[in-house]
Amino acid sequence: MENYMEILGRRAKSASREGAKLGTDAKNRGLITVAEELIRQKAYLLEENTKDVEAAKEKGVKESLIDRLQLTESRIEAMAEGLCQIAALEDPIGEVLGMKTRPNGLQIGKKRVPLGVVGIIYESRPNVTADAFGLCFKTGNAVILRGGSDAIHSNLAIVKVIKEGLMKEKLPQDLILLVEDTSREVVSDMMKLHGLIDVLIPRGGAGLIANVVNNSTVPVIETGTGNCHIYVDESADLNMATEIIENAKTQRMGVCNACESLVIHEKVAELAVPQIVQCLKNHGVEVRGDERAQKISDDIWPATEEDWGTEYLDAIISMKIVDSMDQAIEHINRYNTGHSESIITQNYEHALQFQNEIDAAAVYVNASTRFTDGFEFGFGAEIGISTQKLHARGPMGLEALTTTKYIIFGNGQIRK
Amino acid sequence: MENYMEILGRRAKSASREGAKLGTDAKNRGLITVAEELIRQKAYLLEENTKDVEAAKEKGVKESLIDRLQLTESRIEAMAEGLCQIAALEDPIGEVLGMKTRPNGLQIGKKRVPLGVVGIIYESRPNVTADAFGLCFKTGNAVILRGGSDAIHSNLAIVKVIKEGLMKEKLPQDLILLVEDTSREVVSDMMKLHGLIDVLIPRGGAGLIANVVNNSTVPVIETGTGNCHIYVDESADLNMATEIIENAKTQRMGVCNACESLVIHEKVAELAVPQIVQCLKNHGVEVRGDERAQKISDDIWPATEEDWGTEYLDAIISMKIVDSMDQAIEHINRYNTGHSESIITQNYEHALQFQNEIDAAAVYVNASTRFTDGFEFGFGAEIGISTQKLHARGPMGLEALTTTKYIIFGNGQIRK
Repeated sequence: MENYMEILGRRAKSASREGAKLGTDAKNRGLITVAEELIRQKAYLLEENTKDVEAAKEKGVKESLIDRLQLTESRIEAMAEGLCQIAALEDPIGEVLGMKTRPNGLQIGKKRVPLGVVGIIYESRPNVTADAFGLCFKTGNAVILRGGSDAIHSNLAIVKVIKEGLMKEKLPQDLILLVEDTSREVVSDMMKLHGLIDVLIPRGGAGLIANVVNNSTVPVIETGTGNCHIYVDESADLNMATEIIENAKTQRMGVCNACESLVIHEKVAELAVPQIVQCLKNHGVEVRGDERAQKISDDIWPATEEDWGTEYLDAIISMKIVDSMDQAIEHINRYNTGHSESIITQNYEHALQFQNEIDAAAVYVNASTRFTDGFEFGFGAEIGISTQKLHARGPMGLEALTTTKYIIFGNGQIRK
Repeated sequence: MENYMEILGRRAKSASREGAKLGTDAKNRGLITVAEELIRQKAYLLEENTKDVEAAKEKGVKESLIDRLQLTESRIEAMAEGLCQIAALEDPIGEVLGMKTRPNGLQIGKKRVPLGVVGIIYESRPNVTADAFGLCFKTGNAVILRGGSDAIHSNLAIVKVIKEGLMKEKLPQDLILLVEDTSREVVSDMMKLHGLIDVLIPRGGAGLIANVVNNSTVPVIETGTGNCHIYVDESADLNMATEIIENAKTQRMGVCNACESLVIHEKVAELAVPQIVQCLKNHGVEVRGDERAQKISDDIWPATEEDWGTEYLDAIISMKIVDSMDQAIEHINRYNTGHSESIITQNYEHALQFQNEIDAAAVYVNASTRFTDGFEFGFGAEIGISTQKLHARGPMGLEALTTTKYIIFGNGQIRK
């Protein structure tokens, strides 16, 4: 007997064959009709969302999480607007890359095609439901969504409305499937659907991601964890450094591209540290530093070994003083999570060396780490930020949801 | 306490930082010196290989496997020649793709960089040791090789000689590490080195590959299994069909791109089947067909459900008669392993439909499936043939051993 997830997986696989055949016009029409449907059924969506919000309040969930869970008129409009924006993006499917003719006359090219079935496991933000559908649908994939139990009424409602939009356009409704059973066993089953799900993308906290990486037999794209560093080089413009650090740490604290650790060259430490610490203090950020940093400022708390590897997602930052650029690179490569790192420098050689030697998805010179984002990079959309090296690295737009196949045109060639 | 594999993993990770800094000239010099060293130490390599061959003979291993294990003067020369060919290939590392300037002045580009540490788990062919080293070294990666216990003396000797070559050029010897402990526990440890090994590539039988896919927490690239089909369309040139089938099935039987299953349109079955069966019979190939096929020829044995999904790697082929092109596509997409599939047709629409709708790494029109190969595709080298959709699909050349990172040049930009 097949289990619940296997049945869902088979339905998605079958729908994905249809999704792969859809032309760009049909897909764009579908996205726009779904967007209109979300707006039309706003009252219903708000009503269902209220059930989740009430339940969360009863459970005593903290305010910030309730805020993430809550839908409002303007959030629903933003979801619909997001789908229209995806409709406006160029369709990557069907592009043929580098077709060449071999000496034996075979013409060989690489064609961009959908991945097939994308599985997304996420926590309580219901807007992910519409976003993920839009990106997967535009790229001809079927998507299986497993949202958090906290958002189940909202997700059921959003998926119902999306399916109604698809139905209006006579498009395959199984291109979006919600896992309605929110038990943990079902997540385990989902991670074992090798051959039915082509890729699993976990979106959420470090615990969720580690669970998926450790237990999935389906290929996984790791996203999100960002222990991002800013290195203030000996030749840095210190005002620029302070401004960038202020932005990278305080513009939004709970996000993966926020700065979590500072590395400062000893030659500028005496000047830079007080200025940076004062600025961060004004934003209520606690600085935890090594002994050398503590000697420079009384406002620095001691950092432990654990601090160097911590993504705080909170009003705390770590600070390390180094003797050299090489030591800075070594420290960052040891503790970073492969997300985003930045150097502040006026030295040409140091700028290039940092970019060459730092091992991360995005390496900046003289800019805030907060730019690591699909929209800021100009992709028009984002399914997540990959911190792994296979398939996609950094902000993932539509192309990350595609693969290629070789197409070969012959006229009777056989191998000698 | 770290286990044996963790220590190896850390050494490789550390060496990979050095590998990433090597310029193309240094890498090419290393490859050529290692090639010369292999030739110079031919006698030593043959002597060590003899130990493995003798042991295998004593264990009563079958002739074909002993042949794969055996080194000869010319095989060692071919290994050296392979390294020189890799030296002659263009170095993909350092290329910057699509650098653009954003409205805020940030310049964002994607730079091709090494993956870091590549793990390869393979069976008894010792030439893989030199090939895999060459491809990983050229792309600035460190490689951890875990070969079969049958080939341990050969592999130890090859790796020793390679390290001596690297030493002569003052290149980091830890860029190649052999797992000297051939116990199964060590393979399990290797598959858990998430964060130290960036990708695992299993090369070998279906059992080995399934074990790695099911148990690895390191990202895996699946390779190799090929249940390849040839579909003879109603409009096929039957002589071309027979010639291509003969080539795809019989030119080499034990390889992953050999044809394992035939799908024939009923309208040409009466004419095509006897001709194809006779041709295959001349090569000693047993044909197993469905009922309709059996009615046409007495030389066809009955096929069971299991046959449709079997990669024989032997002198057997399955045959299915279909009513339509759609049925052919459905059958192939159901039973294939995503490797290589070919249609023989003179019909333009059918050629395109087959290429669009078949889900495989390589989809051919009027050519033998045997061309799915890095050399035949013009890549100059091959680390394996990926049958998965993430990261790399089809024959993998140097580029499959690389990833990218975003490099961002700013002058003080902060996010608004």
